[in-house]
Amino acid sequence: MSGGFSAKHLAVVGLGLMGGSLALALRPYVETITGVDRSQETLEYALAHKIVDHGTNDLKAGVEQADVVLLAAPVRTIISIVHDRIGAYLRSNTLLVDIGSTKTDICNAMGRLPIGVQAIGGHPMTGKESSGVESSDAALYKGRPFVLCATRRTTPAARLRALSLVEALGAVPYEMEAARHDRAVAAISHLPYLLSAALVATVAQEGREDDAVWNLAAGGFRDMSRLAASDLNMMRDILTTNTTAVATLLAHFRMQLAMLEAMLISKDEEHLTELLLPAREARLTWVKHLERKP
Amino acid sequence: MSGGFSAKHLAVVGLGLMGGSLALALRPYVETITGVDRSQETLEYALAHKIVDHGTNDLKAGVEQADVVLLAAPVRTIISIVHDRIGAYLRSNTLLVDIGSTKTDICNAMGRLPIGVQAIGGHPMTGKESSGVESSDAALYKGRPFVLCATRRTTPAARLRALSLVEALGAVPYEMEAARHDRAVAAISHLPYLLSAALVATVAQEGREDDAVWNLAAGGFRDMSRLAASDLNMMRDILTTNTTAVATLLAHFRMQLAMLEAMLISKDEEHLTELLLPAREARLTWVKHLERKP
Repeated sequence: MSGGFSAKHLAVVGLGLMGGSLALALRPYVETITGVDRSQETLEYALAHKIVDHGTNDLKAGVEQADVVLLAAPVRTIISIVHDRIGAYLRSNTLLVDIGSTKTDICNAMGRLPIGVQAIGGHPMTGKESSGVESSDAALYKGRPFVLCATRRTTPAARLRALSLVEALGAVPYEMEAARHDRAVAAISHLPYLLSAALVATVAQEGREDDAVWNLAAGGFRDMSRLAASDLNMMRDILTTNTTAVATLLAHFRMQLAMLEAMLISKDEEHLTELLLPAREARLTWVKHLERKP
Repeated sequence: MSGGFSAKHLAVVGLGLMGGSLALALRPYVETITGVDRSQETLEYALAHKIVDHGTNDLKAGVEQADVVLLAAPVRTIISIVHDRIGAYLRSNTLLVDIGSTKTDICNAMGRLPIGVQAIGGHPMTGKESSGVESSDAALYKGRPFVLCATRRTTPAARLRALSLVEALGAVPYEMEAARHDRAVAAISHLPYLLSAALVATVAQEGREDDAVWNLAAGGFRDMSRLAASDLNMMRDILTTNTTAVATLLAHFRMQLAMLEAMLISKDEEHLTELLLPAREARLTWVKHLERKP
């Protein structure tokens, strides 16, 4: 639909789980892959396991020959790379795609790149419990949503090339404006993280008074506390670059919880049911919808 | 340590996942099992699959010959059975154990049973995604915490017999007062349910404005929304019999979330980290602790 993806020289900046998996998944479509990472150990691992063909900790050396550059670092690292440095290093017509978790600030920075750079924001909705280049997995993006957000540096050709890259990954492209993306992920990802952290803080407070709390905690708490263990550097970058949307969603959540609390305290079971039943149905509908997907 | 469990005639009142699994797990230790359930279909299934030896929808007929009776119904059904009816049906010295999710109201009702009934409150911390007698599993209780709460009708002999029953299930007994149990499960189970429901309600509200929300929702939301799909009859019984503890925990949670929100809005990363880091560590410590268990 958008033509097969191919590249002569792919550069992946940031060889964590996401970057390493991008390199593995795109290997069949490119001639050469260069990995850029600050860690010598990571570079050596990626070279030894043929995840990349070349490795360097020098951004300029890593990207100046590339015709496709993928930025797979935490959000604020991406912003600083885009804002301060990479524009001067890239050849004209190089396609630059990032995979940062928030998009407005990154896409704004991309919009100020030199004319000639082809830049588009990206966000694949995938992940794993384990992190690091050692967990790289060519199938990580398969069947998962991959958001693309156009910038002032997204030409029609850049857009089509990015779409073909997403298809090469086996991912499902969703094109939308950066602000719309950021609001959606505030609801489904950043708010849930804050709730998980606040829940664990609340339970930990109880646990200091009575350690039975920890002994009895089971599957429900396990699910609800998992996000609290997310990487803190990553989450700080996300929260500080999506503050407005997250604050808005927090306010909406607070109202929902306050309604539940009022009905609970007044033992108003009829209205309690009117709130809890649609939530139950929305979750069941969503899960069914997920299962229908290929 | 508390002597092997055995019974001549076990009655299980309520043949859902939990009751059916109790019957299967205790089968090697008892001579006869009678199942009591309102649903003829459930009784027929349990008989056909030899989960029980006899089935009836008549409480009196089901329990009057038993020397051990297990109540495996929703909390308010248990309360009404204990409060209104079962005392007149039980033989002297019969051991009565319930497995309701909140304990104070049930244990209070048990305390008013005729002298001679041996009654103790129980709560196994286990479950499954699927429900119903068809999901019954003899291993459901294995290695899981099983709380026991003494009542005014718990003699030392009843306590020991209940402990041996818990051991026969392969579960790990925790003895504590009903109020302490209810406070702990408010923190680790009932509060998380309300958060999950309020989150889904918040996301559903967003989803009505932008359906991208549902398309992008991934693993984090999946974990955080699972509890929202809990059985509503069960949850209403739980919330209305544990209102005070749940309201207290909701207030604690609200404070934690308000602190996070304030730091987020003022971009106070130092204090944000001071809250998020201990939550991350508490979760990681708990998971390690779980994994060390047999």
